[in-house]
Amino acid sequence: MKECALLAVGDELLDGRVTDTNSDFISSRLQSLGWRIVLRAAVGDELRTLADTVSFALRVSDLLVVTGGLGPTRDDLTREAVASALGRELERDPEVEQRLRSFFDAMGREMSPSNARQADRVRGAEWLQARLGTAPGQWIEEGGRVIVLLPGVPREMRDMLDNDVIPRLKERYPGGEASTAVLLVAARPESEVGERVSEVLAGLEGLKVSYRALTGQVEVRLSAAEAGLVEEGRKRVRGALGDWVVAEGEESLEGNLGRELRERGMTLAVAESCTGGMVGERITRVPGSSDYFRGGVVAYSYKAKEELLGVDAGLLLERGAVNEEVAAAFRSGVREKLGADLGLSVTGVAGPGQGVEREPVGTVALAVADGNGVSTFKYRLPGNREMVRMFAANIALALAYFRVRGVSTQNLR
Amino acid sequence: MKECALLAVGDELLDGRVTDTNSDFISSRLQSLGWRIVLRAAVGDELRTLADTVSFALRVSDLLVVTGGLGPTRDDLTREAVASALGRELERDPEVEQRLRSFFDAMGREMSPSNARQADRVRGAEWLQARLGTAPGQWIEEGGRVIVLLPGVPREMRDMLDNDVIPRLKERYPGGEASTAVLLVAARPESEVGERVSEVLAGLEGLKVSYRALTGQVEVRLSAAEAGLVEEGRKRVRGALGDWVVAEGEESLEGNLGRELRERGMTLAVAESCTGGMVGERITRVPGSSDYFRGGVVAYSYKAKEELLGVDAGLLLERGAVNEEVAAAFRSGVREKLGADLGLSVTGVAGPGQGVEREPVGTVALAVADGNGVSTFKYRLPGNREMVRMFAANIALALAYFRVRGVSTQNLR
Repeated sequence: MKECALLAVGDELLDGRVTDTNSDFISSRLQSLGWRIVLRAAVGDELRTLADTVSFALRVSDLLVVTGGLGPTRDDLTREAVASALGRELERDPEVEQRLRSFFDAMGREMSPSNARQADRVRGAEWLQARLGTAPGQWIEEGGRVIVLLPGVPREMRDMLDNDVIPRLKERYPGGEASTAVLLVAARPESEVGERVSEVLAGLEGLKVSYRALTGQVEVRLSAAEAGLVEEGRKRVRGALGDWVVAEGEESLEGNLGRELRERGMTLAVAESCTGGMVGERITRVPGSSDYFRGGVVAYSYKAKEELLGVDAGLLLERGAVNEEVAAAFRSGVREKLGADLGLSVTGVAGPGQGVEREPVGTVALAVADGNGVSTFKYRLPGNREMVRMFAANIALALAYFRVRGVSTQNLR
Repeated sequence: MKECALLAVGDELLDGRVTDTNSDFISSRLQSLGWRIVLRAAVGDELRTLADTVSFALRVSDLLVVTGGLGPTRDDLTREAVASALGRELERDPEVEQRLRSFFDAMGREMSPSNARQADRVRGAEWLQARLGTAPGQWIEEGGRVIVLLPGVPREMRDMLDNDVIPRLKERYPGGEASTAVLLVAARPESEVGERVSEVLAGLEGLKVSYRALTGQVEVRLSAAEAGLVEEGRKRVRGALGDWVVAEGEESLEGNLGRELRERGMTLAVAESCTGGMVGERITRVPGSSDYFRGGVVAYSYKAKEELLGVDAGLLLERGAVNEEVAAAFRSGVREKLGADLGLSVTGVAGPGQGVEREPVGTVALAVADGNGVSTFKYRLPGNREMVRMFAANIALALAYFRVRGVSTQNLR
């Protein structure tokens, strides 16, 4: 089996400021190509240790992927360290330097001299294009091994890995791909998902299953050497949990909600309180969401609830802001104001304090409505402020998705 | 400065199933004792790679802390690997073996032969007592360096680290607790921050500086063995970049904005388009933000811009939605509707498509206003949809923070 080492570079990874999510991402991508990860390491912005670790990692692996340390500042030392570990020179590429300069010109800014270091390439390396940032990556061959240098900014790294590195790896090391399927299940507890999945997959030898709890969602991952086996498992999981599966593979819940709305020519409006804009932010992550998303209201104060949504002040004073009635009033308010087909609302107490509300921390009320009527829901959610908010946003999006597809949410109340 | 390496052992750490929280914990404990972490690594249950990594880690550090691989099963290989890396024998300790046997007797279970392996000690090692499990740890001295073996179960590891290892380390390496300072700079490019910081810190020998780019913000981190040196560096950086420093240490920009608003008894309202709720979400991350945050409007469609904010339809048709005039109209709309002291607005083209707008992708217009007037800004931001949105949200919060504190934003236009 092909063996791979991952090396992440940056002081921030060593002192606990930043979790190395890059290596998790790369690891999952490479494993599905049949690579075995034998070493994961993180080192700081220090030339000698970095060069030593590169040399060491090359001794135990066929492929070394280095992330980070490609930026313009003095502590970005990956280029120098890899060159030193391989005993090669660094060469400045005038074409790349010119491209960097044009980038800064287009932004109306002057390029500082240190930025030119991003045009330094280990002798013999091929460039990997930087579409989302200024730091290009490098692909280096050394004694039958491959070293790939990628930027540390996660989205730049992901773009380069998926669009440049993986196609090259497939060509350089053909065969051996493992098959995987990922299903995202919403509004069901992890234990229930686990039990139902185990039940339906009984007898499928060689199929590996793992779970990841994601605050109101559970990710189910199936993998096997044989694609047919994964496909059979995927069908069975969909059969058992069908309506609650809100996304598969690279899809997202918000993306699928958008697709369903667009197909039906429907529009959406949102009213939020405790989530403070999180639901709108999720919906508008999707490119083209302006086709169906009319907009929303973040009604944090009672005044905002009255002014923007026309919620009756008496109702707020009498019942507090966190209950199904207010959620429904919210939803009607925003739906009418914005002339949307579907109205969605979330109100709740995220904590840590209970504030003026009478409901305990973690209480969340939701309402969703279309032309056919309104459904309201009330949950008591676990965890801290951040978890309650994420949970509430995930549940809200799932409820909208269920409603649009006509999935019964009777037993979610 | 004393240098330390952390090594976590177990296949589950390499394939992304389990996140290595042990190393984060150990890292934070050791840093507060003045240790600098120079390497973090994870390897699987494979003898050769494990032994090689132990040897390598000892070459770059004075202290190596290994977690995991001390259990009773065949794939627990840390003892063997460390013995092999040091060229020493493993010795079974009859006293510990007897203690293990008594432990199983007390559980009413028979001890399997493999469990006796937990009584194997690297020759010359001292035992670290297992109070919460069966696997004892080991403290090994080798050529002036220390190797500590701890169990992988987080609870057992933490107990052993806090109660046995840290007291020993304090005795073995007295003094030297380190100092750090972290400053978050907004609305300035990383290269400019790097150059100005290098300039003002010239001559401060022994002060280590690192940078991290955070999409519209740059984190500057200073550290040194001597607290006075860090404090001097911190003062100089504040002196050079003072107004643009939006947070220090554990603070956040949104938290500091909230504190300034609360101190002045001011309230805030937000109107967003391209950020879709992201600015509101950031503001409401802060517990107690309901004291000053009135709410906001996500005006994604032209209809929402008219209905919720009273923006003139003629202006939208004539000029498009992404310009300073519309941003100012947004800001006035939301400020009046919600009766807030400070109004903040963001409108822009996040891409990937330009849609109906006449401005290119990445164009963002912002406006911020209080009783004294309004300031408008227009940026051309780099990157993809996600980056433009994050950048816009960071800039918006920074502009509000500058405005509240009366910082001139003249040269940001």
